[in-house]
Amino acid sequence: MTAPVFPRVFFAIALCFISTASLAKDPLPSWNEGKTKAAIIQFVSAVSDEKNPGFVPVAERIAVFDVDGTLMNEKPIYLQANFLDFRVDDMGYKDPKIDKNPDILRFNERENWQDYFSKTPLDSIMKVYAITHTGMTQDVFAAIVEDYLQGNPQFLRTVYIPMRELLDYLRANGFKPYLVTGSETGFIRALSESYFGVPPEQVIGTSFKTSLEDKDGKLSILRLPEVGHYNDKQSKVLAIDLHIGRKPIFAAGNDGNAGDIYMLRYTTQTGGKPGFGLIISHDDDRRDATYTDKDGATMKAVGQYGWTKVSIKEDWKALFPTASNLSNPAIKNRR
Amino acid sequence: MTAPVFPRVFFAIALCFISTASLAKDPLPSWNEGKTKAAIIQFVSAVSDEKNPGFVPVAERIAVFDVDGTLMNEKPIYLQANFLDFRVDDMGYKDPKIDKNPDILRFNERENWQDYFSKTPLDSIMKVYAITHTGMTQDVFAAIVEDYLQGNPQFLRTVYIPMRELLDYLRANGFKPYLVTGSETGFIRALSESYFGVPPEQVIGTSFKTSLEDKDGKLSILRLPEVGHYNDKQSKVLAIDLHIGRKPIFAAGNDGNAGDIYMLRYTTQTGGKPGFGLIISHDDDRRDATYTDKDGATMKAVGQYGWTKVSIKEDWKALFPTASNLSNPAIKNRR
Repeated sequence: MTAPVFPRVFFAIALCFISTASLAKDPLPSWNEGKTKAAIIQFVSAVSDEKNPGFVPVAERIAVFDVDGTLMNEKPIYLQANFLDFRVDDMGYKDPKIDKNPDILRFNERENWQDYFSKTPLDSIMKVYAITHTGMTQDVFAAIVEDYLQGNPQFLRTVYIPMRELLDYLRANGFKPYLVTGSETGFIRALSESYFGVPPEQVIGTSFKTSLEDKDGKLSILRLPEVGHYNDKQSKVLAIDLHIGRKPIFAAGNDGNAGDIYMLRYTTQTGGKPGFGLIISHDDDRRDATYTDKDGATMKAVGQYGWTKVSIKEDWKALFPTASNLSNPAIKNRR
Repeated sequence: MTAPVFPRVFFAIALCFISTASLAKDPLPSWNEGKTKAAIIQFVSAVSDEKNPGFVPVAERIAVFDVDGTLMNEKPIYLQANFLDFRVDDMGYKDPKIDKNPDILRFNERENWQDYFSKTPLDSIMKVYAITHTGMTQDVFAAIVEDYLQGNPQFLRTVYIPMRELLDYLRANGFKPYLVTGSETGFIRALSESYFGVPPEQVIGTSFKTSLEDKDGKLSILRLPEVGHYNDKQSKVLAIDLHIGRKPIFAAGNDGNAGDIYMLRYTTQTGGKPGFGLIISHDDDRRDATYTDKDGATMKAVGQYGWTKVSIKEDWKALFPTASNLSNPAIKNRR
């Protein structure tokens, strides 16, 4: 029992140096100075400071993040839907019968993504998901996604670097960040670590039901073509309660749809612990894309509930890992 | 941004001392020396040692524990059912109409716990749960459980001290322990921190469906009288997959019923990472109670899959926080 002493002591000493060094540096270098950055730092400093009346113990520093449009670019289309497109093409190539399915037909004959997602009944969209995302074990599905991601490394360059810095900054201050996404849980889990440094157990998404297969003495988890949980709006709050069991103190979403309002309201409503709400406003047509939810509900809520707005145009020095001012090449290459 | 330096440096230095000090001590003082204790220490040492071929990175050191009969005494009846009993009495006292409900009637007219749980249809049992555990917000329910636990501190003395030590030992070696229980999630979350040092987000149990109530500008999570997930046998594995998203490397259950076999099989089946299975055998009629599942299925599985058996009689020096050889007073006081 003496072997582990040296690595641990080394780790502890290394921690001292890392802490001291990182604190001397700007924790959010891709953020322009201004009231948005100041508000974030002020909140994180307050909850981390034992002498501050707003102090929150480490165990309660839960943060929740929407993914598409919040942690990464989602235009012209979000990554999960790109994968859906890949799966439909790949499965249709291997078995053309699949293309005759009415929901696949509708998917393949779309004019554009915007119309497809806004005008197709959710039930039909979820059937396309079921066809492409279920009917195999979790291990097989994970391997399919892994292969897709390895073949498409350009998507790593659609991650918003300022938000990756924010995740790191929160973690350095004892926060535990969760991804709370409308995308499918297994899909996001396959990239959460490499894209965002977030382990699979901190991913809460839309999920399909499963069953346990017991074959030749081996247990496998089979993905069934029936939605178990659709993670959007109110149901994001219910999923946070089911998976985490306590109110987050930090929540970030975006104004691209109205999907994050409840999650931010839940996080920031009074009743004990402090809560911080952050909304990314897609107002940069040069480096990102300009769009909002239909009736501007999210930005109205920002004013009503005192959340902090991030103007991509004003608040972010750089958007993507290329660290240049060029538009994201991943976007250019997609229809 | 300089304020947090000192606490962190202090924490890091403190960590050095704690690590060094704890490693010099026996990590499992309530366990008798022998092959069970040796097997546990050997496994934990191997996965924590970077030079060992069985090394597992910290992020993957997921451990899962059954609760009743594994982490605490469950005889004559498990804590969750004691609470059920309290709720039925309390609600019936306040509103005698409740006692006319056929499922409550059946519950109240039971001969004994053993018969009630083994002979009542699950549906009827879950109706008693629904009546007593739903129809209020999560906050109100948490307050009811908190009040019950504060009024019944004797249950803290039914926690198996050797298992509490094991949880601490695993945590000290980078493991993240989850409670995977048939008891209701919200109930176990109310005690997981104080009883076992486990935060609410690491509790996976049976759960009821919920809805989001939006009243006077405040969001609350309402507990609905419909079972969302019943956590037993195969479904424990599915819940581990949904909530954690990767295979645990350590699992502990008990032979009191056959509820943990799948969870241990899943954890220990080959295919990459190592896996350790631990089964508590209730073989001590003096300090605990002697019982097994109906056909001895769990102990058969121990032999078949090479799991490690804990004989309470042989392997544990002390069972309960009183640190004496007396029978648990909490048990004596219960019918």
